[in-house]
Amino acid sequence: MPTKIRKLGECTIKSPLHQIGGVEVRYRSDAERVLYDHTCTDGQPAVDPADLHVLSFEQAGPREHIFFDPVRTTVGIVTCGGLCPGLNDIIKGLVTQLWNRYGCTRIYGFHFGYQGLVQRLGHQYTILKPEKVKQIHLLGGSILGTSRGNQPIGEMVDTLEDMGIDILFVVGGDGSMIGADLIVSEVEKRNLKISIVGIPKTIDNDIQYLDKSFGFETAFAEAVKAVRAGHAESEGAPNGIGLIKLMGRDSGFIASYAALADGNVDFVLIPEVPFRLEGPRGFLEMLRHHVANRGSAVVVVAEGAGKDFMDGYEDLDPSGNQRPKDIGIYLRDKINALFRERKMELNLKYIDPSYTVRSVPANAQDNFYCQQLAQHAVHAAMAGKTGMIIGRWHTSYVHLPISFVSRHGRRMVDPTGELWRAVLESTGQPGSMM
Amino acid sequence: MPTKIRKLGECTIKSPLHQIGGVEVRYRSDAERVLYDHTCTDGQPAVDPADLHVLSFEQAGPREHIFFDPVRTTVGIVTCGGLCPGLNDIIKGLVTQLWNRYGCTRIYGFHFGYQGLVQRLGHQYTILKPEKVKQIHLLGGSILGTSRGNQPIGEMVDTLEDMGIDILFVVGGDGSMIGADLIVSEVEKRNLKISIVGIPKTIDNDIQYLDKSFGFETAFAEAVKAVRAGHAESEGAPNGIGLIKLMGRDSGFIASYAALADGNVDFVLIPEVPFRLEGPRGFLEMLRHHVANRGSAVVVVAEGAGKDFMDGYEDLDPSGNQRPKDIGIYLRDKINALFRERKMELNLKYIDPSYTVRSVPANAQDNFYCQQLAQHAVHAAMAGKTGMIIGRWHTSYVHLPISFVSRHGRRMVDPTGELWRAVLESTGQPGSMM
Amino acid sequence: MPTKIRKLGECTIKSPLHQIGGVEVRYRSDAERVLYDHTCTDGQPAVDPADLHVLSFEQAGPREHIFFDPVRTTVGIVTCGGLCPGLNDIIKGLVTQLWNRYGCTRIYGFHFGYQGLVQRLGHQYTILKPEKVKQIHLLGGSILGTSRGNQPIGEMVDTLEDMGIDILFVVGGDGSMIGADLIVSEVEKRNLKISIVGIPKTIDNDIQYLDKSFGFETAFAEAVKAVRAGHAESEGAPNGIGLIKLMGRDSGFIASYAALADGNVDFVLIPEVPFRLEGPRGFLEMLRHHVANRGSAVVVVAEGAGKDFMDGYEDLDPSGNQRPKDIGIYLRDKINALFRERKMELNLKYIDPSYTVRSVPANAQDNFYCQQLAQHAVHAAMAGKTGMIIGRWHTSYVHLPISFVSRHGRRMVDPTGELWRAVLESTGQPGSMM
Amino acid sequence: MPTKIRKLGECTIKSPLHQIGGVEVRYRSDAERVLYDHTCTDGQPAVDPADLHVLSFEQAGPREHIFFDPVRTTVGIVTCGGLCPGLNDIIKGLVTQLWNRYGCTRIYGFHFGYQGLVQRLGHQYTILKPEKVKQIHLLGGSILGTSRGNQPIGEMVDTLEDMGIDILFVVGGDGSMIGADLIVSEVEKRNLKISIVGIPKTIDNDIQYLDKSFGFETAFAEAVKAVRAGHAESEGAPNGIGLIKLMGRDSGFIASYAALADGNVDFVLIPEVPFRLEGPRGFLEMLRHHVANRGSAVVVVAEGAGKDFMDGYEDLDPSGNQRPKDIGIYLRDKINALFRERKMELNLKYIDPSYTVRSVPANAQDNFYCQQLAQHAVHAAMAGKTGMIIGRWHTSYVHLPISFVSRHGRRMVDPTGELWRAVLESTGQPGSMM
Repeated sequence: MPTKIRKLGECTIKSPLHQIGGVEVRYRSDAERVLYDHTCTDGQPAVDPADLHVLSFEQAGPREHIFFDPVRTTVGIVTCGGLCPGLNDIIKGLVTQLWNRYGCTRIYGFHFGYQGLVQRLGHQYTILKPEKVKQIHLLGGSILGTSRGNQPIGEMVDTLEDMGIDILFVVGGDGSMIGADLIVSEVEKRNLKISIVGIPKTIDNDIQYLDKSFGFETAFAEAVKAVRAGHAESEGAPNGIGLIKLMGRDSGFIASYAALADGNVDFVLIPEVPFRLEGPRGFLEMLRHHVANRGSAVVVVAEGAGKDFMDGYEDLDPSGNQRPKDIGIYLRDKINALFRERKMELNLKYIDPSYTVRSVPANAQDNFYCQQLAQHAVHAAMAGKTGMIIGRWHTSYVHLPISFVSRHGRRMVDPTGELWRAVLESTGQPGSMM
Repeated sequence: MPTKIRKLGECTIKSPLHQIGGVEVRYRSDAERVLYDHTCTDGQPAVDPADLHVLSFEQAGPREHIFFDPVRTTVGIVTCGGLCPGLNDIIKGLVTQLWNRYGCTRIYGFHFGYQGLVQRLGHQYTILKPEKVKQIHLLGGSILGTSRGNQPIGEMVDTLEDMGIDILFVVGGDGSMIGADLIVSEVEKRNLKISIVGIPKTIDNDIQYLDKSFGFETAFAEAVKAVRAGHAESEGAPNGIGLIKLMGRDSGFIASYAALADGNVDFVLIPEVPFRLEGPRGFLEMLRHHVANRGSAVVVVAEGAGKDFMDGYEDLDPSGNQRPKDIGIYLRDKINALFRERKMELNLKYIDPSYTVRSVPANAQDNFYCQQLAQHAVHAAMAGKTGMIIGRWHTSYVHLPISFVSRHGRRMVDPTGELWRAVLESTGQPGSMM
Repeated sequence: MPTKIRKLGECTIKSPLHQIGGVEVRYRSDAERVLYDHTCTDGQPAVDPADLHVLSFEQAGPREHIFFDPVRTTVGIVTCGGLCPGLNDIIKGLVTQLWNRYGCTRIYGFHFGYQGLVQRLGHQYTILKPEKVKQIHLLGGSILGTSRGNQPIGEMVDTLEDMGIDILFVVGGDGSMIGADLIVSEVEKRNLKISIVGIPKTIDNDIQYLDKSFGFETAFAEAVKAVRAGHAESEGAPNGIGLIKLMGRDSGFIASYAALADGNVDFVLIPEVPFRLEGPRGFLEMLRHHVANRGSAVVVVAEGAGKDFMDGYEDLDPSGNQRPKDIGIYLRDKINALFRERKMELNLKYIDPSYTVRSVPANAQDNFYCQQLAQHAVHAAMAGKTGMIIGRWHTSYVHLPISFVSRHGRRMVDPTGELWRAVLESTGQPGSMM
Repeated sequence: MPTKIRKLGECTIKSPLHQIGGVEVRYRSDAERVLYDHTCTDGQPAVDPADLHVLSFEQAGPREHIFFDPVRTTVGIVTCGGLCPGLNDIIKGLVTQLWNRYGCTRIYGFHFGYQGLVQRLGHQYTILKPEKVKQIHLLGGSILGTSRGNQPIGEMVDTLEDMGIDILFVVGGDGSMIGADLIVSEVEKRNLKISIVGIPKTIDNDIQYLDKSFGFETAFAEAVKAVRAGHAESEGAPNGIGLIKLMGRDSGFIASYAALADGNVDFVLIPEVPFRLEGPRGFLEMLRHHVANRGSAVVVVAEGAGKDFMDGYEDLDPSGNQRPKDIGIYLRDKINALFRERKMELNLKYIDPSYTVRSVPANAQDNFYCQQLAQHAVHAAMAGKTGMIIGRWHTSYVHLPISFVSRHGRRMVDPTGELWRAVLESTGQPGSMM
């Protein structure tokens, strides 16, 4: 099952770098692939790469012949969904690679995500040039702004046609990628030659078939700062508890990485590992016991943890509207109540770094990674590939069909896997709190 | 009214540095003072320094003769109240100055604030040495821990007597300083020769007669990070609002400084400047108007802002207990409700850095300042001064009687003063939202 | 001797803030002043403020009536000399204050210092608006560029005339301020009404009559990082020495502040305190002794230290040209030679952070300070003041005549003063190494 | 060629985690391996995993049965070679994993690398406990110190025997790993059952068969700061050049990563890609041309670049001793000379961050990575494996025979590979400057 990447047509134009500086460039052929499964057992391969059904991914990189004539190519860039460190890096990387490497000079940045592709909403676009993006990697957020949700596919493709867009880069989450796939279908239906290349974004690191998502390195590094503050608080007072809520609605990657990086966390609660609050083996009693013995505790909770018992928990705002349930606040109140009931002194400090984790500028790791993703995205698009996203698998940059990735749902922390085991080993928390 | 500093007795011992390295040291005499008011008007002095009633402060610094014989002196250190950047720096500074400069080698660190001075509570103490404190300025929190509230004065003085403490350094807020003053009285009543020297701590920078309190520089620098995240969020989506709540129950110093440092804030709400929410000139309408015109807004609110109208706002936790009212959450809900009502799109991101602002290690500015405060505190204590705190006034380090400072209440942002004018000029917000 | 600030003429225009928001603004009158000397001795004033010869400074702040009509005022900004953290903050602060507070909208940024004022050199200027400067405080350097040295005064004033500049803000060091003063004279000679207001810049913090110069807080905070690296190196190997060279050609402020902030430095060498290298009480022997006893040492040296004995030291580059003498390299080689000679193991690591200390973006402290300086500079210029610089004295913002400041030379670390005493107490180094 | 890991004997003891918390642990078997080559070509495997000669690595992770009885096991830790970010993280990770996961409580830290294993040198050792290492990941350097070079193997093994060491963890570079391999041989010769497990250290990221070496992420992130300072300088003056020298004696990984992360670099010079200085296509002329056209340039040079022409360059220190040749200084002088000769204005700022890059505390990325390496190293050692190092290959943690890795020399940047191509695309520099 070698995943297939769609192409707009034959590549007949020589890649322009060839002429520059007499440098030998190692071009990639579409036949070069990376195995999904790289394990084996003594003398027994996990998979047989000769088997056509073995899963493998097309390698990214420059093609010797490309589809689009750079000087006649018009490019659009759109950033969708919530903010994530690295959005500006991706924009910068795309613009400089298009301009310097290929010589494309007509690059439009659409504003506020897919909204920017709907003319009737009246958002402006920005003309992007290397000079304009030179320092944007030092800023958080996205210079183009973002928005959530998809927009009418037809209207968006109308805009692409009207503006003569040849290549559209979509930076966004899984919802936006489904939108991108619908754009691909509409483009095909209209018999247009527009390449749609996605750069998948999820601060939670929960995309399948990807070593990591951009922004994640920055996000968990920021999260570590919150964990350290929580640790200082926990030791700063008798029976201190630092309770830190971190991003992760469906997965506990940020929580797990931050806890491991800090190394002084006592409990990590994530969506993938159910736990009970009450009862002799429940979290509350385990925590109380830990504080009674050690004098303090640090607890990291992902926002999606404890889904099952959060169902009954409703919070109302002053106008009587239902407010999103918050596991952090809930735990804080529950722990406070327990210690009050047990007449134990308690100094619980609750920390929710919230958006600060995602709105900071990318760190050097993500500066580098985004730049690589952008370079490869441009190579792919110039070669006329479409309906695909750029990823990295086992340290190799690859092309993945959008539909293939979106079909397989989100990645989660495997409760029997290496990462969670490392967390258990580092925290010493009970393997089960049920 | 030259403020008077109490002394335990005659200083008859030569300060030991005199012998070291043949260096000329400029000792301070107790007669050297700094004027409280250093302004004048053309040809007309604001005050007449010859006037004995003119307020002035004793200058800090080494005295040529000291009261305690360093090698026979036993010292205690206690950190009280909430965490604040620089606590470890103060501890380090005291220990190294006592040890290296004067040769005091019996230094005890009491744990968890005044609790550590009450033997019946069973907290241990730590023996402090230069080697032990070498790197603690790199850590947030306090290696001694803290606690809030005072303890029975008699029991605490019993401990000082039992352990033969000659000097007690108290690092803490105004409540702790009142406690320190009571200890001074009890010590005098018992005819003991124990020096009590305070280093005032308030992250909110709201102590009277002080240029700044330690930890404040770090705290507002941390707060700026939250403001920047809020700014990135505000521009990241259509009609974006970044709402940032910062520390400051009674004063708006952190909010004002952070807003000025960032320079991209549109509204600052502080306890000292009342405002209305509703009505045509109220904050909500001003904000709505700003977003409608500019497309985004950044709002910084100090936790103590809007006290008057917060009275009617009660929040209950799941067990039905009353929860501390939170202006940040309240504003978030109110703004959301307004925009919903007006059917305007809104992307409000609420950021509350909370304890991260106070639990971080001190930055270089506070490293330096704490070290200076500690050096001067040791000089004062060795000279037998007591019932005083170390401060800095108009860039000079000074001695202030505890009672004098605590009698004058907390410092506040003057709504007609320079700081608030700078905020109004920087934000362009209406001078009044009543 | 109340220092006098020159004015272009009568202030007849009402300051425009008056109308905004009904806010009460406390305007400053030119008669409000701050005493240079704020000390006193019990019952004996150090100075008599009624005495007209007592030194005092005019307070900065908004004037109720101004000289320039904002909407008709054209403003120029130029940054001169070496880079310094905060240059972009000053530019941003000037532009936003001019635009938002006063309504001036014609603001030109000249490129590359005074070169930008000489038309024949062909540098372009930039039109500055709030939108353009919104994020520049996050960048190091100066968006306008700088250059060293003055340019022909006549040609520069020609440009001011040709472009109709009413106010010129000069950000620069003492050389540039002397240039600014010459511009003032030429402007007067030509009977022009152009205000020249300086914002003094020196990363070394060595300007007289100023609490601190902008950029210094950032610079010494950066320097502390280098000192910490040196400390880690010193303890990382047997007989380790971390030798850190810091900026400070004529003064040891950065070296002293960084050493005090770090608190783990053993020797600080600055230009103001002469020392010998050789001999039984010379630095080399003191250092060798320290390493032999303690196993490691951290040495901080300001680039201007050891001037006397550096005279005989010449370094040649490969082409035979004389290279600037470098005390850091010299000490490194001398120490290495000594230990080799004594057959002692030595692991000396030499660290010279050089330009990284001055090219970083300003930290929150300097963000704040630069913003205040800029606001006050605009108030002064709008009131028609000229030939002056903005400063801060004993925490009050003041106006100082350029000539007064430049006449009094550079500030230095006083070897018998508080700062150097603090360094000696913190390091424990010998008071004299002669 | 499945690489073989040596074992001390049968594993007969049940791994103790089994009992904790009822958690399901997925143990690894020694048969689980990872392919070296994970690429394939459409329908044509690059390698046949069934082929016994195909290169693959044993996967790391906990074994169900272990060799050492934890409560009777004595462990030593030694850090060798130059400092590198993460050394303290590795120490912390080893200690906490040994103590918390397995229950080993006799852990000795040897001081100053292999010197600490030679009793006659008289260095002390430290008893390591979780409490002692709790915060050391916040400090740069190594709490154990390091030293370069090997020591007499016999004497070191004597110490291991005398102290009853069962497991020795060696953190160090390739020289130290060769030493470790010699210790393994001597241990075998003496018929001892001592496990020697290495954690390879090289800040330059130049170890074969490793995704990355620990500390590298921190190092290049620090290097990026120097590059940004250089960029600010280059734009801060007319004809500005920022010349930044970075670590990398034999390889250009730090230089390449830092340049890509910054994204505003114009030339990268590394050891792997030879270039000429002189001549019409040489670097100097290319640089001059770039500055003449663009007004500025940023140049990053790895310390090992330009080896061939550096041979003729000798630098003497004041005592006439030959000084290590420095490409950075050399280039600086050459560029200055060229511009002087051509009478072009030049503002070249030379930045050499040197040791600051390696002496900083590890960042969150390396905190995490070191923790993982340490956990796996402990699992391996407890299972009696020896003569091996812990690595990560294609995102999987693996065991590698020391001899296998050291036999294959250092990794280098492939001038025809992906990384260097990315650099050429990002900088736009000529592919060849010969």
